Amino acid sequence: MTKKKSLSDTVAQIAQTLPALGASSGLIRNQALRGLAELIERSQVELLKANEEDLSQARKNKLPEALIDRLALSQTRLSQLVAGLRETASLPDPLGAIEDYQTLPSGLSVGRLRIPLGLIAFICEARPGAVAEAAAMALKSGNAIIVKPGKEAKATTTALAPLLAEALESAGLPGMAVTLLPELTHDGLKELLSLNQYIDLVIPRGGENLIRFVDENSRIPVLRHFKGVCHMYVDEGADHQMALELAVNAKVNRPGTCNALECLLVHQKEASKFLPLVGAAMISQGVKIVSCSEALPYLPGATKAKPDDFGREFLGPKIAVQLVADLDEALAHIRKYGSRHTEAIVTRDHKRAQIFLKNADAGCVLVNASTRLNDGGCLGLGAEIGISTTKLHAYGPMGLRELTTTKFVVQGDGHLRH
Amino acid sequence: MTKKKSLSDTVAQIAQTLPALGASSGLIRNQALRGLAELIERSQVELLKANEEDLSQARKNKLPEALIDRLALSQTRLSQLVAGLRETASLPDPLGAIEDYQTLPSGLSVGRLRIPLGLIAFICEARPGAVAEAAAMALKSGNAIIVKPGKEAKATTTALAPLLAEALESAGLPGMAVTLLPELTHDGLKELLSLNQYIDLVIPRGGENLIRFVDENSRIPVLRHFKGVCHMYVDEGADHQMALELAVNAKVNRPGTCNALECLLVHQKEASKFLPLVGAAMISQGVKIVSCSEALPYLPGATKAKPDDFGREFLGPKIAVQLVADLDEALAHIRKYGSRHTEAIVTRDHKRAQIFLKNADAGCVLVNASTRLNDGGCLGLGAEIGISTTKLHAYGPMGLRELTTTKFVVQGDGHLRH
Repeated sequence: MTKKKSLSDTVAQIAQTLPALGASSGLIRNQALRGLAELIERSQVELLKANEEDLSQARKNKLPEALIDRLALSQTRLSQLVAGLRETASLPDPLGAIEDYQTLPSGLSVGRLRIPLGLIAFICEARPGAVAEAAAMALKSGNAIIVKPGKEAKATTTALAPLLAEALESAGLPGMAVTLLPELTHDGLKELLSLNQYIDLVIPRGGENLIRFVDENSRIPVLRHFKGVCHMYVDEGADHQMALELAVNAKVNRPGTCNALECLLVHQKEASKFLPLVGAAMISQGVKIVSCSEALPYLPGATKAKPDDFGREFLGPKIAVQLVADLDEALAHIRKYGSRHTEAIVTRDHKRAQIFLKNADAGCVLVNASTRLNDGGCLGLGAEIGISTTKLHAYGPMGLRELTTTKFVVQGDGHLRH
Repeated sequence: MTKKKSLSDTVAQIAQTLPALGASSGLIRNQALRGLAELIERSQVELLKANEEDLSQARKNKLPEALIDRLALSQTRLSQLVAGLRETASLPDPLGAIEDYQTLPSGLSVGRLRIPLGLIAFICEARPGAVAEAAAMALKSGNAIIVKPGKEAKATTTALAPLLAEALESAGLPGMAVTLLPELTHDGLKELLSLNQYIDLVIPRGGENLIRFVDENSRIPVLRHFKGVCHMYVDEGADHQMALELAVNAKVNRPGTCNALECLLVHQKEASKFLPLVGAAMISQGVKIVSCSEALPYLPGATKAKPDDFGREFLGPKIAVQLVADLDEALAHIRKYGSRHTEAIVTRDHKRAQIFLKNADAGCVLVNASTRLNDGGCLGLGAEIGISTTKLHAYGPMGLRELTTTKFVVQGDGHLRH
């Protein structure tokens, strides 16, 4: 009688790939990434066929249109994915640099060597492209990764799994270093989140419910954001045209994302001139406005905000507006309602810009720029695996460097402790 | 009828000191540190009297001598503490620097601003000096801190608490930013560890049981090491005299600490000449040797090691010895038994030194230096709040920088997302 291999055994085996990954050169890891790009290119037909299976199941189950859209692959999306993999391969190696190297008065040389974090568990929802991207970032940074994709993407990710293993093995790396677990049940996920002897980090990516589930059940450190309640403060004396363009872009460019604008804070002195402008622009873009009573007279078509409209992630074409007396009041509002994700100020005043940058508590704080720019790609990170709203390890968008850590490397000549 | 203020309310109030701390200048924070040094100097008599109370209680309760020694203050220890506080005040401000500043092709300027982590809970055992040092490091780095000292140090820490508040307030900072909770019960500690809406980080410092309790009960991220099982590998061709001095220093300098040597790995070709030397030296220092069977013939006075002698933290005058065939076998032993704390190699060979530095998985890896040097002071960090064996956020000794994080600060000129 053969027994099915336990999850814990599988994860232990995956953890055993870490020494080989850690010792591998950047050239080899890049070769695996380019190999994966080529394999995905060559397997387009099979991948699209598997994806069609997932899509017809999703339609049968009457899943929401937004989810079906995220689930869907197309030749265009596959080409973008392949291009992204090649771009990741061409980024500098995040490993091996020695930072802060110094020779101490004792003669001891001390530095910090960039090393991989170890074994990462990535728990995500429907988007199959996110699976390949996360795997690529883990591999580039010398980490092993276990991916639990959304069950809606089961056929697609099952078709993707052997390509990942083949790309790794062709480059001489252990195939299990990237392991997809499309079959993992809810109970299996709970068990996975308890294996802190093997797994170093959990990254959930998806809706608030998924993230909360992972956070509450994990014995392993979790990097996550629950939600993005992003504010933009239009300061006294701000350029109205710039503020208008920034607010509209931040709200309507992609309202369903975490860095979309949810609440506009406006200095009371700008209300009478700025609010009618921005109100008309929002409404012409189909955005519903809820507002504090003081702003209401300047916002034709707006309705009075309920208390829980502040601090809310609308995830759609709706925005809250609040008048404030000054910068301090804007910062107090952000302290009360912000989610440590993205906060922006529109101002001409240098000093207030500096105060806002220092005191608005968020992983990304912007001056005269759209909140939608809080994104690894837009901020020059090259690639992004998520946005952290916890301050430990990584705060804000997480790129390749956030998937690494450093260890102290010390070289002496018989140095003792006295 | 008045109700006692709940723990959660107290912690919420402490969290409210964060904006003032974050906005404070380094000069002000240093002024508070120097004020604290002076207050402790002026209150020596009261502090020593309170400490005598704790000590007589400890003797009455027949606590172990080692614990009573850690608990004890003296004029010398107080002077060292005061000097340490002044040294911390004179270190560079860990806050406010902008790192990795760049202007992207889009014209957007992006940098990472060093900011405090937030509110730290520090859970420790008997040493009263550790309480003041942790408070000083938190304050220097702009964090608020809640300290739960060991109950054995209750009188001493109760006498220390008003000095901390006075030092803060005299500098114009909120007195609650450093709060000691000497009265907190076991259940209270459990409640504290659940307040993840206010507390950003927990640092336990003490024995394995304390750390395990904190780790298992915390809903807040924990930076910790359970134990230090430190190895030293004596490579083929190593300088025997150097290896002897390093091994003896690493074992006997302070055997009760986490960076003391627990297991000596010796290349088989060096066994016949090196082992008798090191064996005699250890025994003359009162160190008991347990060894693998292959090394036993070269170690008069040693006994055969039991399987669980490997991977064990003896915390006393005892050492395990294991012969290995080569560097690979040494690394495999460390992978199996190490605790990600401190690993050392003694070698003359540059290439093997590099391989060891890269592949030994520990927060601190040393070449030709004593494991006892893995300490914030010895490695140039200025001060240390603990040694982390988890890879997230900080790996190895944690100095002031490890009590900070960065946020993205972005400056544009009306930049939109397209």
